Amino acid sequence: MQYQKILDTIKEELSTKQNKGKVASYIPELAKVDPNKFGMHLYCINSGHYGFGNEEEQFSIQSISKVFSLTLAMSLLNDELFERVDVEPSGDPFNSLVQLEYENGIPRNPLINSGALVIADILVSTLDNPKKQLLDFIHEITGNTGININLKVFNSEKKYSNRNASLLHLMKSFGNVKNDIETVLDLYIFQCSIAMSCKELATAFMVYANSGRTLFDKKQIISERKIKRINAIMQTCGFYDEAGEFSFRVGLPGKSGVGGGIAAIHPGQYAVTTWSPPLNPKGNSELGMYALERLTTLTGFSIF
Amino acid sequence: MQYQKILDTIKEELSTKQNKGKVASYIPELAKVDPNKFGMHLYCINSGHYGFGNEEEQFSIQSISKVFSLTLAMSLLNDELFERVDVEPSGDPFNSLVQLEYENGIPRNPLINSGALVIADILVSTLDNPKKQLLDFIHEITGNTGININLKVFNSEKKYSNRNASLLHLMKSFGNVKNDIETVLDLYIFQCSIAMSCKELATAFMVYANSGRTLFDKKQIISERKIKRINAIMQTCGFYDEAGEFSFRVGLPGKSGVGGGIAAIHPGQYAVTTWSPPLNPKGNSELGMYALERLTTLTGFSIF
Amino acid sequence: MQYQKILDTIKEELSTKQNKGKVASYIPELAKVDPNKFGMHLYCINSGHYGFGNEEEQFSIQSISKVFSLTLAMSLLNDELFERVDVEPSGDPFNSLVQLEYENGIPRNPLINSGALVIADILVSTLDNPKKQLLDFIHEITGNTGININLKVFNSEKKYSNRNASLLHLMKSFGNVKNDIETVLDLYIFQCSIAMSCKELATAFMVYANSGRTLFDKKQIISERKIKRINAIMQTCGFYDEAGEFSFRVGLPGKSGVGGGIAAIHPGQYAVTTWSPPLNPKGNSELGMYALERLTTLTGFSIF
Amino acid sequence: MQYQKILDTIKEELSTKQNKGKVASYIPELAKVDPNKFGMHLYCINSGHYGFGNEEEQFSIQSISKVFSLTLAMSLLNDELFERVDVEPSGDPFNSLVQLEYENGIPRNPLINSGALVIADILVSTLDNPKKQLLDFIHEITGNTGININLKVFNSEKKYSNRNASLLHLMKSFGNVKNDIETVLDLYIFQCSIAMSCKELATAFMVYANSGRTLFDKKQIISERKIKRINAIMQTCGFYDEAGEFSFRVGLPGKSGVGGGIAAIHPGQYAVTTWSPPLNPKGNSELGMYALERLTTLTGFSIF
Repeated sequence: MQYQKILDTIKEELSTKQNKGKVASYIPELAKVDPNKFGMHLYCINSGHYGFGNEEEQFSIQSISKVFSLTLAMSLLNDELFERVDVEPSGDPFNSLVQLEYENGIPRNPLINSGALVIADILVSTLDNPKKQLLDFIHEITGNTGININLKVFNSEKKYSNRNASLLHLMKSFGNVKNDIETVLDLYIFQCSIAMSCKELATAFMVYANSGRTLFDKKQIISERKIKRINAIMQTCGFYDEAGEFSFRVGLPGKSGVGGGIAAIHPGQYAVTTWSPPLNPKGNSELGMYALERLTTLTGFSIF
Repeated sequence: MQYQKILDTIKEELSTKQNKGKVASYIPELAKVDPNKFGMHLYCINSGHYGFGNEEEQFSIQSISKVFSLTLAMSLLNDELFERVDVEPSGDPFNSLVQLEYENGIPRNPLINSGALVIADILVSTLDNPKKQLLDFIHEITGNTGININLKVFNSEKKYSNRNASLLHLMKSFGNVKNDIETVLDLYIFQCSIAMSCKELATAFMVYANSGRTLFDKKQIISERKIKRINAIMQTCGFYDEAGEFSFRVGLPGKSGVGGGIAAIHPGQYAVTTWSPPLNPKGNSELGMYALERLTTLTGFSIF
Repeated sequence: MQYQKILDTIKEELSTKQNKGKVASYIPELAKVDPNKFGMHLYCINSGHYGFGNEEEQFSIQSISKVFSLTLAMSLLNDELFERVDVEPSGDPFNSLVQLEYENGIPRNPLINSGALVIADILVSTLDNPKKQLLDFIHEITGNTGININLKVFNSEKKYSNRNASLLHLMKSFGNVKNDIETVLDLYIFQCSIAMSCKELATAFMVYANSGRTLFDKKQIISERKIKRINAIMQTCGFYDEAGEFSFRVGLPGKSGVGGGIAAIHPGQYAVTTWSPPLNPKGNSELGMYALERLTTLTGFSIF
Repeated sequence: MQYQKILDTIKEELSTKQNKGKVASYIPELAKVDPNKFGMHLYCINSGHYGFGNEEEQFSIQSISKVFSLTLAMSLLNDELFERVDVEPSGDPFNSLVQLEYENGIPRNPLINSGALVIADILVSTLDNPKKQLLDFIHEITGNTGININLKVFNSEKKYSNRNASLLHLMKSFGNVKNDIETVLDLYIFQCSIAMSCKELATAFMVYANSGRTLFDKKQIISERKIKRINAIMQTCGFYDEAGEFSFRVGLPGKSGVGGGIAAIHPGQYAVTTWSPPLNPKGNSELGMYALERLTTLTGFSIF
């Protein structure tokens, strides 16, 4: 089946599907988002762009930003980075303190909150202007200098950051946070409040599908070896306590965010993104999961 | 580089490498194995068999058998199987009781001990002669009717089965074990004591690399959709608390056993197996991990 | 106020009190007990026996038996006993496996299931006929040779012993169970199914209030030093995850059982027992807790 | 034996005893304390003061202050206080985050760090000038207005407060901290850095031995009922993960601090305090525990 037909099929199926998910409510600004929004964008190495729905409307990428900050940190550092954060699935709710306690302040992986906070700490230590340079990085991989944060989300999230502050203090007590906690937390909230559309996200994730190179200007952003590592981490750790379920149903490396976005890739083939705010009980977009499962079923191949 | 040259390179590198691992000692019969044994076998869809070292010597496959029993159970049942066992990584030592307690007797996945014991319980419920039929299944996918258990290992393991008995009693208290505990434990120990060589294991795992079909006689053993699911489970759950590390370093779905064996696949490309008894602290073969990492590095592709 | 008046007051209060508890249902035989039964017996060193209600009707003492088996084991062994079981509160539901796993098979204390199973194992190792000798011990401290098990409860409990079998297998895997699991489990179920009345239990517990001596024949059953230790253990560990609440509300060392019984003591003053089958969510008798709280309030002294 | 002779015996025994403990080092200012200091003071209701060694030298009372802040909070509030903090032993290292996470931000008891932080939050909400009023309270129960904080300890502790900040942020995320985190933390560190001698502490703890009244001026500080509750909490929760061991060996309600102090009481009889900086692995004063065990052995009575 052709990609356009496949997306048309998914679009039609979605129109009749009831959405049992719930929009994230822990931040007031996220709770205001229209639950009926749905966008999907597929960006193929060989045949370009496909999409439908609200694919060009920006939303809060939230935890999907963890992939970008990890990539930026890995482009600056080598394996010493993995002395401060492990690469194992967490097997626990995404912001739990339990394993961190047992494992002496070393987060299980860079895609859970604690791990992303350590990455933020590393960026604060390494970069002169981490906020600007993280945005620059996203501009570079998307070719779009207009991408920025949603200031309302940023300010809203500032007020509800106690759990992340708790994680930072705990890791600092183990010596695994080097900088001022306010500064690290500020960078982390900044990255979570970046707003991108499905189309922009798919363009950015093409770097992961295309061996570390942008497709539009063939620029090598990070080494092929490091991109493989990031993809492996997304595969095992990208979906909170549902990494196995996603791997099982969809079979692609990817990352979700509580804003309702999901970005996934098929190495050598395509990047694909969805946006639907209502989340399932494990914190991943209900309809996004469904759409991606249908995509790999209808195309007939996952990475497995 | 050609496959034969790649294996030659790995063989040479291994000859100079010190092995820091330790042979599993919890069963006396396993502790007797010569730590210097090393075998590797690569079975490619397009170009056939390659290998070196003790690739034709049989060893105790131990937990690698969990993949075969899962496959047999999935060939007999549909999604109802996953009401009794989840598909999430465990994030904990392989035979821990903790998560099982918190999750009401539902194991995290079918490749940890608790999950494999539930699969054994399902086989006892479903099959007339589960031991014989599990061996028949292995004979069918290898084309080799000589494969059998190592009786010494079987008897030795019988004496050290308290942790697995504990898991079974706990799951039975939650209603997730239906049969007599002795019978289920007997089947589980039987499957762990099956002896196979690297070459035989690679032939068996070709089914997982070849969309559910044997390569030697093109027989469809299980549906393509189910094979993808099993591969996804191996990817996220196949290496105890080192699934992420294996995914990160090697980038292939696979399964290891405390006998020192590892079997892995590249879907559509090859099955590969290694055997080296000394294990790293997380219970996976030290040199096996190294050899497979070198394989995907030198061939230039992992699934990512 | 005189003791008889205090008991009269409590009796009157109870007559108007709604019982929100639920009778234990995990064993069919226990579920059959009449929830309206209530007995209370107070046995004072200086002034003898007081009581009301179903104080002379026998019920299944269940976990209260753990105090008797501990006392028997401590009369046979010295501090080496505490190398196999700790004396710290468990801070967890009474039959949890979690802490046992983290603490290498050493139970937190002898009054949770795992700890009482280790004590049973010790009795099996030390005594020729542990069942008979445990009953003999109870006969000796009560002066009543008619006390025996309830055979229906014993047989019923035999069928629902998976969690305790799980604990035994786990501890055996750590080397902290020395005997055959069936034998140890049999003794444990035997002791739980002993039937005693409030009056008989209060007579038995007088030993703990009276420095290790029976009151009726002044026989020293166990040293004063050891009795103090047992009382200290009852104080911190006698009420599952409600030890603090009981200490806070009642302020006496004691032990409860899922049969609805509670036995408590005021050292140097009295032993007191209650029986009311409906349990609160933490597994202790709802009305028994209330009656004991009223007793220490109305008498104006707890041990604090 | 007379009290003075008993203390003489203990003093002599201590002179030959090797101290295997280690002085707390997590705060530089505490690490500087002379490990050879030892003081003991016994204050009897009927016969007054006894003591020896460095009994009049002030030290940092640290966690012993939690008893005073709890008493002050209980004198201001009724049972609604126990909706925000439980009264169960923690069964875990004293500053663990684990149980707090599982129990939705409600600390297990008011004598672990998390619980004492909630009490500090309550004092900030309830009092105009909590620091001054807490000192006033201590002045009132000791009759000594010279007691104050050690400013060096206070400043040193300020720099090492990440774990407590982590606890506060976590509890705030559950809604169980109402005030600004800096303010609550400041009060908590203030109370921990109060400096008192063994003699002063014993005078203060007489209130707990004497049914809520000071002995020197017979003033009722708090109701008898509430004092019993505090004593019950000290009994089950006063010694971190060694509450059972202390109850077992010493048999008195009490509280220890990482400064090396221990205060304990025998209700109706005496208050007793010890100070020896080296701590055992569970964080309680090694020699202090020994001295108190000898005291209850030689006097021949504990509360049990």
